[in-house]
Amino acid sequence: MQVRELVSRIKKGDRTALAKGITLAENDPKGAAKLLAPMGSPGRAFVVGITGPPGTGKSSLVDRLIEAYRKDGLKVGVIAVDPSSPITGGALLGDRIRMSGHAADSHVFIRSMASRGWSGGLSRATSQVIRLMDAAGYDLVLLETVGIGQSDIEVVGVSHAVLVVLMPGLGDDIQVSKAGLMEIGDIYVVNKSDLEGADLMVVSLLSLFRGSPRSPPVLKVSALSGEGVEKLHDDIEKIRTPFTAGNTELRLKSIRGMIVETARGAAMEHLAGVSEVKAEGLARQVLAGKTTIEAAAARLSA
Amino acid sequence: MQVRELVSRIKKGDRTALAKGITLAENDPKGAAKLLAPMGSPGRAFVVGITGPPGTGKSSLVDRLIEAYRKDGLKVGVIAVDPSSPITGGALLGDRIRMSGHAADSHVFIRSMASRGWSGGLSRATSQVIRLMDAAGYDLVLLETVGIGQSDIEVVGVSHAVLVVLMPGLGDDIQVSKAGLMEIGDIYVVNKSDLEGADLMVVSLLSLFRGSPRSPPVLKVSALSGEGVEKLHDDIEKIRTPFTAGNTELRLKSIRGMIVETARGAAMEHLAGVSEVKAEGLARQVLAGKTTIEAAAARLSA
Repeated sequence: MQVRELVSRIKKGDRTALAKGITLAENDPKGAAKLLAPMGSPGRAFVVGITGPPGTGKSSLVDRLIEAYRKDGLKVGVIAVDPSSPITGGALLGDRIRMSGHAADSHVFIRSMASRGWSGGLSRATSQVIRLMDAAGYDLVLLETVGIGQSDIEVVGVSHAVLVVLMPGLGDDIQVSKAGLMEIGDIYVVNKSDLEGADLMVVSLLSLFRGSPRSPPVLKVSALSGEGVEKLHDDIEKIRTPFTAGNTELRLKSIRGMIVETARGAAMEHLAGVSEVKAEGLARQVLAGKTTIEAAAARLSA
Repeated sequence: MQVRELVSRIKKGDRTALAKGITLAENDPKGAAKLLAPMGSPGRAFVVGITGPPGTGKSSLVDRLIEAYRKDGLKVGVIAVDPSSPITGGALLGDRIRMSGHAADSHVFIRSMASRGWSGGLSRATSQVIRLMDAAGYDLVLLETVGIGQSDIEVVGVSHAVLVVLMPGLGDDIQVSKAGLMEIGDIYVVNKSDLEGADLMVVSLLSLFRGSPRSPPVLKVSALSGEGVEKLHDDIEKIRTPFTAGNTELRLKSIRGMIVETARGAAMEHLAGVSEVKAEGLARQVLAGKTTIEAAAARLSA
């Protein structure tokens, strides 16, 4: 398919064309950029980032949000970003959502993306996929990620609203870093509200914001039973309404995030593309005492 | 303290000087590079990377390894790298080890490092801290990280031997990605061997390597009781012995990793240092349709 035809089909909402565009974004950044340039930036899609530690039920929550927004008649795109590493698996999030009933809905488009060796491609591709979904007429993009490491930052950067999903009794390794946590969320969700300790969790989150200029909502939700989802939907709407009405502040924030993530991704991809031979040669020079690691690193990037 | 005096003190094994050098590496990369240049690359320290999902007991295992190697008379440095994110806390790993008895041992040096906003500084600093410990006469450096995301790659890159620590009954979110997992470990440890399912875990790991050219050891260990730690120590020694005897292959691999991580860190730090004003201006141009995200990203990095 020619670029021109692909662009035209994506803009008409053709799902196959959109899928092709996304695959292009994943594998061929320059090709995807060519695709995006003639589309402009409609900037209609509202991007909700959903992040939180593993196991807090983010996918079930996404499922509920799809349901709620489909009732409103919105077209919903879902991007599940898996920070796959050699240790943890990838492509788990999206697969779960895909197994739900929404996959058959022609106004729901679900795509999971796993990083491949952290070459930086994920940061760049996520932004491009959001823009493709936007161009294809999706009103809402739910961007889900396991909230560990770099992917948090990306989600926060490119989203218009960020949900931080927690649950009662988070273990030792997944502690809540108070300082950082306070900064990133627009809405805090204590999911699995049927579990013991949910109220305690809400109270301790609220206490974090006491005396701070910011007081984002803290909600108890059960994605399982659906309890609290309506309130969550309403709180998202409070952020989305001014956006839809044309407020540019959130748009600028998201564009800025996309620029930074695209730059970050490009830098990482450049390094990943540097030849093994060059790195090996530099390492030999360091071993022989002819240069330093720092000087070699500078030459590797050049 | 002048650089010259600091260098001389670190080389004599002065702990206060080493701590100062590490703080410099964390906060002032160029200052640390100046410190490292006159030290050369003794390359005596053997670096063991220890990675795995949260909660698998890596810190307890590190504790056991310190114990085993202190019996051998080695000086042991420990770097606990916490992939802190806005969601997960930082500085957990090292604190736990520090609470153990080894902290009082003058031949054990423990330092935990948390990333601050993922500006890339961690990658670069980790390499520098290894080199400082090396210069200070540490024979063994244990580099521990929670095995999620970018930190895995760093650990693998700069280490001479990589332990992958797993445990029976790993949950849904922390799945073992077979393809990736097979590539990174030199030794696989199924910790918490008293738990149900340990044998099954060993069997399934072994089955991953069936028919592959590589067959790394898969060990059942209980860091709690100490069972299996001696065998683990022996297996590490099988890798360390040729290294100590002067084999350069592992040295080259580690230096190559340090060069790449230093370059990666420098690129990220550069981007983090780009002014908000510049990013904001570019975002406004994108919003106005005067440029594309890709072009803006290229200008941001320039």
